[in-house]
Amino acid sequence: MNILLTSAGRRSYLVKYFKEAIEPLAGKLHVSNSTELCSSFKFADHTLVSPQIYDKEYIQVILSYCRKHKITLVIPLFDIDLLVLSRNKRVFLKNGITVLVSNAQIIELCNDKWLTYNFLTKNGFDTPKSYIEISLLKSDLDRNLIHYPLILKPRWGMGSIGVYRADNMEELLFFNKYIQKQINECYLKYESSLTPDNRVIFQKMIAGEEYGLDIINDLNTNYSGTFVKRKIAMRSGETDISELITNHRELEEIGKAISAKLKHIGNLDVDILVEDNKFKVLEFNARFGGGYPFTHAAGVNLPKAIIDWLQKNQTDHLKIKTANRIQFKSIEII
Amino acid sequence: MNILLTSAGRRSYLVKYFKEAIEPLAGKLHVSNSTELCSSFKFADHTLVSPQIYDKEYIQVILSYCRKHKITLVIPLFDIDLLVLSRNKRVFLKNGITVLVSNAQIIELCNDKWLTYNFLTKNGFDTPKSYIEISLLKSDLDRNLIHYPLILKPRWGMGSIGVYRADNMEELLFFNKYIQKQINECYLKYESSLTPDNRVIFQKMIAGEEYGLDIINDLNTNYSGTFVKRKIAMRSGETDISELITNHRELEEIGKAISAKLKHIGNLDVDILVEDNKFKVLEFNARFGGGYPFTHAAGVNLPKAIIDWLQKNQTDHLKIKTANRIQFKSIEII
Repeated sequence: MNILLTSAGRRSYLVKYFKEAIEPLAGKLHVSNSTELCSSFKFADHTLVSPQIYDKEYIQVILSYCRKHKITLVIPLFDIDLLVLSRNKRVFLKNGITVLVSNAQIIELCNDKWLTYNFLTKNGFDTPKSYIEISLLKSDLDRNLIHYPLILKPRWGMGSIGVYRADNMEELLFFNKYIQKQINECYLKYESSLTPDNRVIFQKMIAGEEYGLDIINDLNTNYSGTFVKRKIAMRSGETDISELITNHRELEEIGKAISAKLKHIGNLDVDILVEDNKFKVLEFNARFGGGYPFTHAAGVNLPKAIIDWLQKNQTDHLKIKTANRIQFKSIEII
Repeated sequence: MNILLTSAGRRSYLVKYFKEAIEPLAGKLHVSNSTELCSSFKFADHTLVSPQIYDKEYIQVILSYCRKHKITLVIPLFDIDLLVLSRNKRVFLKNGITVLVSNAQIIELCNDKWLTYNFLTKNGFDTPKSYIEISLLKSDLDRNLIHYPLILKPRWGMGSIGVYRADNMEELLFFNKYIQKQINECYLKYESSLTPDNRVIFQKMIAGEEYGLDIINDLNTNYSGTFVKRKIAMRSGETDISELITNHRELEEIGKAISAKLKHIGNLDVDILVEDNKFKVLEFNARFGGGYPFTHAAGVNLPKAIIDWLQKNQTDHLKIKTANRIQFKSIEII
């Protein structure tokens, strides 16, 4: 079994995990990226410099590469890539290639923070109050139905690009305009063009503790487990220090309920904030998230589980081996 | 010889480098930090949770620890720590302890971006035009002596906290106010209180390539070499991908000239921007910088050189072994 990770960028750890997982099968690990300047290339067996994701030829190039190199599993790692590949899942399947990605509708829901908010409120999950219409927000501020500080961010945002705190109306109006400009200047413009009139989301700021969940479904969207991490130190939207928590009943229940309603495939990376002892679900990433390595380091091995599932086997690779352990990100130069 | 790295935070790689360097001497590597939650603690032989740097007892606690554990070399790794320890160098020296830090005047010059700018212009180094008085900036904008985009940042800033681009007067005025608020809300408030009236610096934005220099002086401020890195990919103010360039005459000359004028001790981490083929010196960090591991991975070993110098030996550890190599940051979980 040969595997291709697309848009792998700096996630060299995932390349290592997958290489280790397919070693017993004598499979080869391929990595693609739109530039060869990425750390993930250093650990791959084979690499492909692909066109940009929004290039017309992107799908054709990836598909041809897969056929040529007998790749049967493709795993996208970047949000824009998820959407493009999910829309083309069938083309790949016709060629005997599984793309580990949820259906396009689910990817769109996860990538669009306003659709995520609507999904959460409609299904009874607690989440920070959010707005997409600034006129409604202003009116609710006037009527004391919502209070500063507010968080403004790109509706189709990724990482910490264009995320600002507003403490008053002047800051709110300013950042609303400034974020629009930032969106136009970076890759956020691609997906943002799907909703050209409402590209900024306004959200009640929650200042409490932060958790990250890995909610795992199998290839047929059946629930397989939730792994709970308390984020101890963050840097630019990514977790630096994290505690893997076992037997967190309440968050595991939330994970299970999200899985049942969303019906995603593979990993769903979820951010949760705490306010007054209530868990507020914040955002979804329908892929391996930046916090997955903390789950992996605790003994869970989703790459191996995915391979088991593809081979129609049961998996015993979704178990934590080290309970309640604090783990640290460490930097090396290669 | 036992060594203490203070404010080591997430720089676990430096702990490893220094441990390796003192192994032949049977020395122990100690690390201090104001919280035990840091990756550097994981690799140290011994650790100390110290008071906050601005705490009255900070110096006394560090000094007592050094005496108790027979530490003869202290290396601070964080800008605020540099200033506090440089002011107390003599107290340590009286106890037979070398603090690897420049004199307080030099540290202040490096930590204060306005003093850095004045040092550079007075000594004939090219640098992006900068302002500390907004009234003068406005007047120069009116007279077309400076143009947008401008970069606004905290005068005593570190990392990428509070750094914004302004494309017009509205953005300029807004961010000037907004940055003041951000300074008050984080540790930047400590050093910023040294210049309460002018806490934001305004600078012509240079959009070209970026270089990082490690300018090395020995313990007596004698020039020992300049190592040139072209920054290929950045993330939140830190280098992700970098090319170590050998024999870059022009930048090596700039490094040598800075060393001669500044007379720092140990490593000086310098940011350089390129515009119209001219090298513009931007900022100084009078310590091991975030880009040092790229220099180290190319074969230079400053920890070993420092130990040689302390033992009054010549050093042969300041040589690049791999020429013009592109190197990548890689993330592990420990």
